[in-house]
Order: sequence, then C-alpha cells, then structure tokens
Amino acid sequence: MKKFLFTFIFSTLFSFAQNTQTLLNWQVGYHSNSNDLPLKYYVSTVPGAVQLDLMVGEKMKQPYWFGNNFEQFIPYEQKWFTYKTSFDKPVLKTGQKFHFVSKGIDYQFIISLNGEKIHEQEGMFTYVDLDLTSKLKDKNELTIKILPVITVAGSRQTIWHYRDNARTSVKPAVSYGWDWHPRLITRGIWDETYLETRNSTQIKEVNTYYNLNPNSKSAFFRYDAELLDGVGKMYELKLSNAAGSDILNLNGTISSDKFSISPKDSLKNLELWWPNTYGKQTLYNLSFTVKDASGTVLDKKTAKVGFRKIEMLMNEGGWIDFTEFPKPRAVAPTQIVVNGKKVFAKGSNWVHPEIFMGLATRESYEKHIKLAKEANFNIFRVWGGGVINKESFFDLCDEYGILVWQEFPLACNEYPNDPKYLDVLKQEATSIIKRVRQHASLGLWCGGNELFNEWSRMTDQHHALRLLDHLTYGIDPQTPFIMTSPLNGMGHGHYVMYEQANGGEVFQWMPKKKFTAYTEFGVPSVANIEVLKAMMPSSELFPPKRGTGWETHHAFGVWGANRWLELPFLTEYFGEIKSLEDLVAYSQLSQCEGYKCIFEESRRQKPFCAMSVNWCYQEPWPCAANNSLINWPSAPKAAYYHVGKACRPVLASARIPKWRWDEGETFSAELFMLNDIHEKVPGAKVTAKIVYDDNKTLKLLDWEFAGCNEYENAAGPTARMVLPKMKNNLFKLVVEVAGKPEYTSEYTCIYRGNDVLNAKPKIKYLNGVVE
Amino acid sequence: MKKFLFTFIFSTLFSFAQNTQTLLNWQVGYHSNSNDLPLKYYVSTVPGAVQLDLMVGEKMKQPYWFGNNFEQFIPYEQKWFTYKTSFDKPVLKTGQKFHFVSKGIDYQFIISLNGEKIHEQEGMFTYVDLDLTSKLKDKNELTIKILPVITVAGSRQTIWHYRDNARTSVKPAVSYGWDWHPRLITRGIWDETYLETRNSTQIKEVNTYYNLNPNSKSAFFRYDAELLDGVGKMYELKLSNAAGSDILNLNGTISSDKFSISPKDSLKNLELWWPNTYGKQTLYNLSFTVKDASGTVLDKKTAKVGFRKIEMLMNEGGWIDFTEFPKPRAVAPTQIVVNGKKVFAKGSNWVHPEIFMGLATRESYEKHIKLAKEANFNIFRVWGGGVINKESFFDLCDEYGILVWQEFPLACNEYPNDPKYLDVLKQEATSIIKRVRQHASLGLWCGGNELFNEWSRMTDQHHALRLLDHLTYGIDPQTPFIMTSPLNGMGHGHYVMYEQANGGEVFQWMPKKKFTAYTEFGVPSVANIEVLKAMMPSSELFPPKRGTGWETHHAFGVWGANRWLELPFLTEYFGEIKSLEDLVAYSQLSQCEGYKCIFEESRRQKPFCAMSVNWCYQEPWPCAANNSLINWPSAPKAAYYHVGKACRPVLASARIPKWRWDEGETFSAELFMLNDIHEKVPGAKVTAKIVYDDNKTLKLLDWEFAGCNEYENAAGPTARMVLPKMKNNLFKLVVEVAGKPEYTSEYTCIYRGNDVLNAKPKIKYLNGVVE
Repeated sequence: MKKFLFTFIFSTLFSFAQNTQTLLNWQVGYHSNSNDLPLKYYVSTVPGAVQLDLMVGEKMKQPYWFGNNFEQFIPYEQKWFTYKTSFDKPVLKTGQKFHFVSKGIDYQFIISLNGEKIHEQEGMFTYVDLDLTSKLKDKNELTIKILPVITVAGSRQTIWHYRDNARTSVKPAVSYGWDWHPRLITRGIWDETYLETRNSTQIKEVNTYYNLNPNSKSAFFRYDAELLDGVGKMYELKLSNAAGSDILNLNGTISSDKFSISPKDSLKNLELWWPNTYGKQTLYNLSFTVKDASGTVLDKKTAKVGFRKIEMLMNEGGWIDFTEFPKPRAVAPTQIVVNGKKVFAKGSNWVHPEIFMGLATRESYEKHIKLAKEANFNIFRVWGGGVINKESFFDLCDEYGILVWQEFPLACNEYPNDPKYLDVLKQEATSIIKRVRQHASLGLWCGGNELFNEWSRMTDQHHALRLLDHLTYGIDPQTPFIMTSPLNGMGHGHYVMYEQANGGEVFQWMPKKKFTAYTEFGVPSVANIEVLKAMMPSSELFPPKRGTGWETHHAFGVWGANRWLELPFLTEYFGEIKSLEDLVAYSQLSQCEGYKCIFEESRRQKPFCAMSVNWCYQEPWPCAANNSLINWPSAPKAAYYHVGKACRPVLASARIPKWRWDEGETFSAELFMLNDIHEKVPGAKVTAKIVYDDNKTLKLLDWEFAGCNEYENAAGPTARMVLPKMKNNLFKLVVEVAGKPEYTSEYTCIYRGNDVLNAKPKIKYLNGVVE
Repeated sequence: MKKFLFTFIFSTLFSFAQNTQTLLNWQVGYHSNSNDLPLKYYVSTVPGAVQLDLMVGEKMKQPYWFGNNFEQFIPYEQKWFTYKTSFDKPVLKTGQKFHFVSKGIDYQFIISLNGEKIHEQEGMFTYVDLDLTSKLKDKNELTIKILPVITVAGSRQTIWHYRDNARTSVKPAVSYGWDWHPRLITRGIWDETYLETRNSTQIKEVNTYYNLNPNSKSAFFRYDAELLDGVGKMYELKLSNAAGSDILNLNGTISSDKFSISPKDSLKNLELWWPNTYGKQTLYNLSFTVKDASGTVLDKKTAKVGFRKIEMLMNEGGWIDFTEFPKPRAVAPTQIVVNGKKVFAKGSNWVHPEIFMGLATRESYEKHIKLAKEANFNIFRVWGGGVINKESFFDLCDEYGILVWQEFPLACNEYPNDPKYLDVLKQEATSIIKRVRQHASLGLWCGGNELFNEWSRMTDQHHALRLLDHLTYGIDPQTPFIMTSPLNGMGHGHYVMYEQANGGEVFQWMPKKKFTAYTEFGVPSVANIEVLKAMMPSSELFPPKRGTGWETHHAFGVWGANRWLELPFLTEYFGEIKSLEDLVAYSQLSQCEGYKCIFEESRRQKPFCAMSVNWCYQEPWPCAANNSLINWPSAPKAAYYHVGKACRPVLASARIPKWRWDEGETFSAELFMLNDIHEKVPGAKVTAKIVYDDNKTLKLLDWEFAGCNEYENAAGPTARMVLPKMKNNLFKLVVEVAGKPEYTSEYTCIYRGNDVLNAKPKIKYLNGVVE
C-alpha cells in the first residue's frame, strides 16, 4: 500500500508547528454484523463519508442531481462500516510519542490497533487523540469500525418524522430528512485525521481569557495552559499585532503542568474587533512556545485573538409591555451589544452547505462567508439541526466579522432526561465550548432549534437544556446563552409570501407584528434556471409536476401539496405561467420583494426589534424550490442581492401596506430612513415616485429629511396616489435620496386591472439577467 | 461570667449525638469604628439580633406596636457591633477537637479568638464551623464583630427604593423596607450557636441521593459521606420505617474519607411521601454511625427521608397557544407532578413571620405550617425578599406535606454581574442547596422575586441567575429550577378587590385571564379588631386617618394614598362607615370574597392553570391593613377560613360575573364541581339558591351533576334570576350538594337599590364573630 508523508499547516486555530504529521491512505468496507469483516474494501477519501466511498467504489449514482438517488444509501443504514489503514513503525527519538488524531468521526465508533481495541466513542465533535507509542509493531494496522445508524424504537418512519430517530443522539437531526434535505445519514471520518510524532513535552489544552473594558480599550489578560512533561521547561507567550509588533511578550520557567500566565498590567490601547459594518475585524497573533534549556522548541500553539465584549441586553421598550395585572415576565432580551454599542443583527440561518459535511473545506466555507459580508450581514444563526462547523468556519467568521449564534445539535425533538444521552451531550458540549469560545466571532450559545414549541415539547426543565446552561456558564460565562429559539418576544415564521390563514401577504401581516427578533422567516422561490436545468431531465422541467425531480427536490409535497413551489399563489398573482423562464422570474420576484419587506420592516421596528435573520441562507443539495438565498453549492439567487440591499447600513425605505394593487386604488407608502450604525446621517431631500409601463414616472412627494442620529431611524411622511391606469402588471416604487444614490431603494408591486399585460420582471441572479 | 453546659437534641435535620455541645453567654455592644471596642456591653440573647439586645439594654421601646418605634434603630445602622463571650479551656481526650459552630450570623462579620482573627465571612446562610483546638488558652475570649449595614452608592433613599441598597448583598431585601415591612435591617447571631467537643473522627458532609420509580415504588439509593480521620473505622447505615423496622442496614469498613454507599438492589415496597391532601407524608429514619473497632460510636448523623419524585411539566393546553406565524415559544411549565400524579398547587406566599428572624423557632414555625395544612394548602412560595428559613421550617414542611418553592434571596433589584457579589452568592447558594435538597418537601428552586419585570430589570443573561441555574443543576439536578417568578404564562397581581384601570372588580377580570399559574394575587383587609386595638392608642382607632398608627402600619400611603386600607372603595360599596367594628367587618368581607373568587376561578381554569398562591400568608409585624391571611404573630383573619374552604380538595363552586348587583338585574352564576385529587367524585344533585334579608330563600336551579373523574372538574349549568327586591345590601348564593354538606359553598354579594339597609356581615375570625 502506498503511503505518503508530509507536514502541512493547519487551516485551524492552533497549529502544532514542532510536530510531524503523517496522512494515511484509507480503505473502507461494510458488513452486516459487528464481528464480521468487510468482504470488499473501497478506496476512501478522508475526510469524507462512508457513502461517498461506497458510491465511487460501487459506481453508484451521485445523489445530488436527478431523482431519488439519495435513497440508494438507505439500505446501508444498518450496515457496519470498517475503515482500515496500515503504517510502518516510525523512528522515534527518546521520549517522543506517536499519536493518532482525528478531529471528527461520525458517529459511534471503535478504534483498534493491530486487532486490539484502543478506543470507543459516541460523538462526532470530540477530537480523538490517542497515544499509540507503547502499542506499535513494525507493521501496524489501524481500523475504525463505524456502528450502524441509530434508530429509536417508536419513532415515526415518514420523512416528516424520521427525525424522531435523532432524538437520543448528539448528531445533526437534519440528516434524517427535512423539508429541504433528503434522508441521508452521513457516517465516517469527516474532519482532518492523521498520525503525529510529538515530543514528550506537549501542550494539551489552552485557554485565552480576557476581560475587556471597551471604553478604555484595555483588558485583563490571562493564558491558561495544561502541559504534559512541562515542568522545568521554558515558555514564551507572545501577542503581536498585524504589523508584527509585540504587545505582550512573557517568558519564564514552567513550574507546574497546569498553570496560568497573566501580565501584571492590563493590555492597553487595544484595537477592538467589530462585527461587519460596525468597524474593523482586528485580530492579534498569539503564540505560546515551550522550549528546552537549549532553546529547542518542543511544542507550540498559535491562535488569533480578537478583543471584543459581547452582551445580550434588554431591547428598548422591552420593559413596558404589560400594564394590567396579573403581569407575566418581560420579553427575553435579544439586543446584541458589542463593545458597548448596539448592533442590529442582520443575517441568515446557516444550514448544512453540504449533505456531506466531510467535504466542507476552508475554500467552500469562504465562498459563503464572503457573500454574507457582501450582503451586509453581521450574524449567522448556526441552526441546531446541523453540525458544529469545522475550525476554518470560525476562523473565517472572525476574519469577515460575522457573529456566530451557535446552537448545539438539538432540533425539533424532545431530547430525553436519559443519563446515557446526557453523558454524550456533556462530553460533546464540553469539547465544543472549549473549542469555539476562543473565537472573536462567537456571539451567542443556544440550546437548539424550536425546542419550546409544540412540535418539540421540551421546556426549561429538560435536563439537556439545563446541562447546556450549566456547561456554558461553567466554561464560558462571558458569552450569552439561550435555551432555544424562539423565546418569548422572538418570532419564527412564516415561510411563504402569501397565506390567507396567516393574514394574507407578508406585506399585510408583517407591519402588525411586534417581536424583539425575527430569527426565522422565509419566502420561497424556485432555483436559478441553470440549477433547475442541471437538476432534472429537460422533459421534466416545464410545466413542473409532482412525481418528477421537482418533487424529490422539495418543490411539492412539503408542508402540504404546493410547497415550496407555491404554484397556486403564483398563478393567482401572475396568471397562467407559460414557460420555465417566466416561472423563475415570477417566483424569484416574489422572493425578492417578500424578503425585502420583512428585512426592512424588522429594521423599521428598531429599537424594540434588534434582529432579523431569514430562513435560510444556503442549502445542502440542489433544491428545486426553497427559502434559501444561495443555491447549492454557491450560486446566489436574485433574492440574495435584494436582501443585501435591504441590509445596507443606511437606506431609504418604504412600508407598503400590500403587494398587489387594483386599478383605481389609492397606493400608499410610509417613508423612512433606516440607520443601523453609530454614525449620523445628514439631512437630504427624499423623493418617492412611481415608475410603470415603459418608464413612465409619477412623483408621489418630496420629503425634506432632517437627518438622523447614530443608530436611529427617521419616519417620514406617507405618500399617497390614486394609481394611474397601467398596461403592465408590474410597477415600481422608487425612493431616492438626493446626492446619495447608494441609499436609493426600489420595490416592485403587482397591478391588477382590465386588459393588463403580464410583464416579465427583470431580476438579477448569478449568470442571469441584470436589470 | 456564668457558664452553663448541657447536651441538647437538635431540632434540625442532623444531630451530632456523640458530641458534647456547650451554649455560651454573650454580651454585645456597638462602636463607631472598626478598631474601637464598645464602651458599653448589653446582655445578648442568642439567637436574636443586635437590635433586640440594644432595645433591652437601653430600655428602648419595642418596635411592633404603636408609631414609628422601628425608626429608633436607624441611627445604629452604620455602627459596628461586637459580641463577646468567654470560656475555660475544656478537658479534651487525645485526638478530640473543640469547635465553634454557628448556623447563622447576619451579615458580614469577623471572628476572633483571644484577639487573633480566625475567620471572616460575608453571608448569613453558610454555617460557621471553626476548629479552635490548637488556639485554646486556659481562659478564652471569643468575639464576633458585625460590620455596619451595607449601603450602595447611588441608591434611592425612600421607603420604596431603599431596597436598592440590598442589591449587592445576599441578604433579605425586605429588611430594607417594603409595603408591609418597616425599615429594620437586622444583624447579629440569628441561629443556633455553640461550642462543641468532637472526636477526631468526624462526619463532615453527607448527601442522601435516590432515584425513585413511583410506579414500582422502588428506588436506587446512594449515601455519600465525607469524613475526617475515617479510614479504617466502621460504618453502619440504617434506614427504618416509622414502626422501627429496618429497610436497609449496611455495615462495613471505611476505606476512604470520601465515599459512597449503595445497596446492590433498589429499595423496594417504599411508602411514598405525598403533599397535603394527595396522600400521607411518610418519612423514614436514616442513621449513619461511625464506630471504632471496639464499637464505640465516634460520630453519627440522622435524617428523615421522604421518597417522592417531583417534576414540573407542561400544563395541559400549554403547547397549542399560537396559531399564527411568527410564533414565539410556548408558556413556561408550571404543572407540578409528584410521584407521577398532577398536583394543583394551592397555597400562599410565605414571607418573614418575624421582623427578627432570629426569634423564629420550631414552635413559631409550627403554628403557621399547621394552619396551612388545615387550610388545605400544599405549597408555600418562600418569597425571595426574605430569608432561607431555619432547618425546623423544612422539617415541619416535610411533616405537614407542604411543598416548598424556595427562592434565593434576590428580589426586585438588578443584582450585578460583579465578581465580589457573585462569589458571595456562590458560597451562600451552595450552602443553601446542599442543606435544603435533603428535604422531601423541596418542590422547586427559584432565582428570586419578579426579577424579569420592569422594576427589577434583570434578564436570563444576568450572571446571578445563570450561576443559580448552574449551581442547582450541578448539586441538585432532580429539583426543578426557574430563574424567577413570574415567567411567561404565569401572573403576578393584582392586589386589590377593585380598580377601574385594571378591569374593575376581581370578579370581573379574573374569569377573562388565562395563566398557567397565579403565583401572587392579593385582596387587602384591615387587621382583626383585637390586633388593631393593640396596635394604636384608642384615640387613633376610628376613623382611620393618615399620620396615625394606621399609616405607620401600612394602611395609608402604600402604592398611592389609600392602600392597603382602600377606604374610597369601601365607602363606595358600603356607604359611610360608622364604626371600627363595621370597618373590620366590611373590609374583611371584601377580602374573604375576593380571595375566594380568585382561588376558585384559578381552579376552574384547571388543567391549563395548575397553581394558585396568594400574596401573602402572614406578616412580620402588625399591619393595620395588608393582603395577609394571618395577622402577626399568628392570628388568622376571616379570609384564612374562607380561603381554606376554597381550597377543599372537592367542592361545589360558582363563577359569579360581578360582586355588586343592582336592583332588578338578572343575577347569574355558572356552577362547577371542582376536584383536585386523584379520586372520582360520584354524581349528586347540586342546588343553587339565593338567601337574602332574614333568611329568605329562592331556589335558582337543581343540577343533576353526573360525577367527575380523578383530577377533573365538571362544568354545570348557569343559574339565572332577576333579583328580588331586598331590604339589606348583602345576599348570599349558596350551592349545596345533596348528601355532601362538606362540598357546600357560599358567596356573599352586594345588592344596591333604593332604600337598602347596610347590613353588617357576620364573618369569622380568631376570637371574633362566628356565623
């Protein structure tokens, strides 16, 4: 067997510069019983998933495009998979150690060396780090046996409820099937995995702790380290800025294997880390080196440190909601405050960007995170149905200024007060907290998704959630924690542009709501046309029908017959749809305008409202219709650009009472200037006008906007006009700010009258039409 | 100085039978600076308070009766107080130890022996236990220096806001002044305090842990002990029932000073502990004895163990409150379930029964707890403005079946994220949790009172509350915890019979409310007539005026000019009031009927509602008017008896839409049978009738009640009748159950018409009129 060796630089928080790492070649095969061996082995790509190796080895179809290919993996759910690899005994210097390290094996597994079991674990988030030194032979075989998928007796076995089976595991519930995710329960090695030669002196665990005073830009600083064989060795702790200048440089002799280093004085004149659009994302370089008496480096850890203080405080107006007795509690706070400044949290729900999270890389993460920055986002809610992402995700969020609302892997289930489950949760949560707390971008811990709702049936008293509060407070008390989302005052939903029972159009119900945070809301659309064309045979493309690729990719049969395509709504609003191009245009227009409405309305509800996070950002495979802003793998939909505009720090905005207008009706729009940052906006003339048919323009009014203060909106007049007779069924409201074209906003509305032509909207999406 | 010695039996959970305890004679004096000594010493009664010793020594007035005597203590708030006592060196056998023990010193103090500081503490709930052995001289002087009252810079200095000063202390906020408590900030030794000779082998800390399966009446059992010098000694662990039969008897040799003992098999055939009216309060006797090889007892701990499982689960109907998106979370659960059976929690808010909690004894506690049992109560919410009670309180709650909702000492303040405060809170909460968790009656931990309301301004993110969740889950995970009351779904208030702005009469708004728990609600009345006569000079008694004993004792000027007397309301409902007797009768009638209305209405709202706990049970000194059911020190008001009837496990009940009726109106009443226990109620004929003037009776209707199931109410018909012309302004609705006189309920309503006479209600209160 071929074996290759190289030393590589980690794309993660800590790098072990002085150690030698060896990658391995792996093979994998499946078997029916625990004690069997695979009859056949396939070449394995690590990190990845057993399904991917099986697919390549058995020449199965890829699961992304066309039909129900993902179902081909279901018969293997109850199989065992065994990975194997072999390696020669390394040449070790006196005292050196030889370790096997894996940053993630999904989900239950047994590791053996030369036939002897050396480790057993349930949990994909706790790094495996095994000292093999004393067990090495000249030729070694290492195996990892992956246990079958866990199923829970009494679970419902339909796509909607198969997630029941996830309720005793600390594993992404989404893999069991969701309304935008096929049932595809990944297993196997999903993160970096290697052999490592180390010195006997090792840095085992570190923690960078600081307590920042954002006003004085100074911080108490402490570095905690746990070593192996460190006593008597020398340490060097350095913190330097991007220009390479040290702001801290401490040296000394190590007197105990568990010790803390803290400078006498606070760190001063710090440049702070800010979320996107609120300031720079300054990161300092930290290095902790352990040397012997001769100065030889024995081990080293490096990290990026961003100095910021994060709080979650009561929303303005949150205390005075109840006037009559009996009084309940006030709303739960959702106002994020960074370095003493209020932040209006704008962003999206980060879901699995891949069915196979083993394939996620720094490069694939960066595409999405860079797009988030460009859309003026400053937060991701990392939804509890998915994984805790790899280190490079957090590194990139640090760099791009995207706060991370990190949920633990609990979603839409009642996780039991069962000692075995709670033990695994404790182990996994402890590993997760210790790892992620080091990141400047960490904004908020959360127990999981929608756990206090009827479909989950957990409460404040469930031990899993009390345990998570216990652990986060114990290990990382400075980061806010909530048990789940939504809490009281926060809102989830709705997920369509129009539903009569929910108050009609988004435009109609959204201004009547009063929430401190909109932490999930969606408006669906079909995918970009290129994505649709790749997704199914051309014969299925138009008209969309059940029983085709449209249905397997979530356009029909989700939450009722017509989601996420919503064909009856589209037909009602646009008449009979005659081509795929028209379908994409109308559906995406609806998503653009619906999302813009909610994002901007939530901002108009500031300061009581402090958060606007749509459902969802991306998708793990190609969805024919979905609430996502980005098609798999990384193609923005038209709505992505519109949402980005709705999230500009400063913009002119209009509250329009409905989307569809009838001939002869009096159109109205309340004007606003929205300002989410801590800078004043100078006064200017704001003009509202209607543009219809072939660029006919009618001015509604001029507003002499007087300017607004830091982090304050300004409400302007309401523009009103009896709508002129139009030829086309689309018209635009344009709100311009004199001298500030970057503040201009546009809204496309629907016009209904006799003899009206169905105009096709011009919308922009990746590789698509640009208006 | 006289010194007396005796061995006494603890009135507490654990008794140190093999040790010899010595009580001390104490003196106390005050001084202006830390390093001064008192110029004068007074004889001190321990346990007590420095104010009581000062009062006796200086022949000051008692603070309870008449005027503003409590204010005489205010000038001493910034004084230091020093206790002193002396004792001879005891004769100790080899290895014996000599300890100073105090179960409570209020609040910051320094203990010195022979002039040398040996201990310093902030916190009145952590027991002091100091080994003096190595420091003893032939003649010894022990001093305890009590620091001045803590005040907080920037606090508001009025009665309503002087509690601001409590916001950095783990001390009852109520002492700083409340709407029914004078400003009287106690300090000093407030619980049992003694010297103790011990063997070198000592039992330091124990914990009885069990995990009960209520269906099989079996429990996993474990006893954890921490010893001093225990290795090699013998232990005996016994658990016996009331008849003296052992159900567990384990012996062995102690191999480690920290160890656990657990029988191989579960305990079987257990008789369970139940709250009052739900079953018996069975308590087992536990003893843990450590002996030497010759069988001599070296140390021993005894305890009572009641086996029960307590859960707080979602209320029936609690999941389905929200139909429209966006959806917030469901209500917080308040359904207490004991041993798998739902309990409707009925009871009262336990406040300080004494200004000076040092005076509370088992005997004084028992008067109140026995009354609670007799009123069919099963819960006390031990309000966070007060203390954590002494051990005998919990012992008695175990015996009488009263669940304890135990709040930590936080109330109506924003307690800071300050490391010093949090350190004291951690120390105190840890002591409290370890002590109280052993009690069968412990039902619920709660962070404190009304902390999530506008007047306190704490949130889920405050470290004090996260710390308390962290500690309770870590030390006592099996007991539910809530951060504060009210939470969402729970209601506090209102506190008067009538207020226009709050929806009028209690009768009018209460049926429209929908809460899972009414955890505070009050209807005020003046005190019993004997109490009033003792409280102020006869010249002040009638008519009640501001600037008299009425005002200093809370009848005026509380929450506005007229609370708690509510004279405008009484005059509006009863006309000009002509005597003290009439005032007491009308005011107490209003309290009786108002409380009956709320208690019974909350029960009618079962199963969504699961808790009804009025504000408040007793009072710490004589209140001229208050929401209390019991006058200080222990005299029930009329409302106590009416509330007791409203809390009968089974009763006939009527929902009456208003209290005051006009001539010619159609009176109506919806009939119900209420059943809070897990027994069926057989069918019976229920008759509703009106009794007015001189026992004139008019039947409204007969209801052929068909019976109801375990823990289920039954709704009957609505009785209606045009009211007859009456002479008197009071009439009664009587609801009788044939063959079950104990289910009968009566309601007195107000009639308003021309030429109506003001009849004086006959109400029962201690030593008062019995109808």
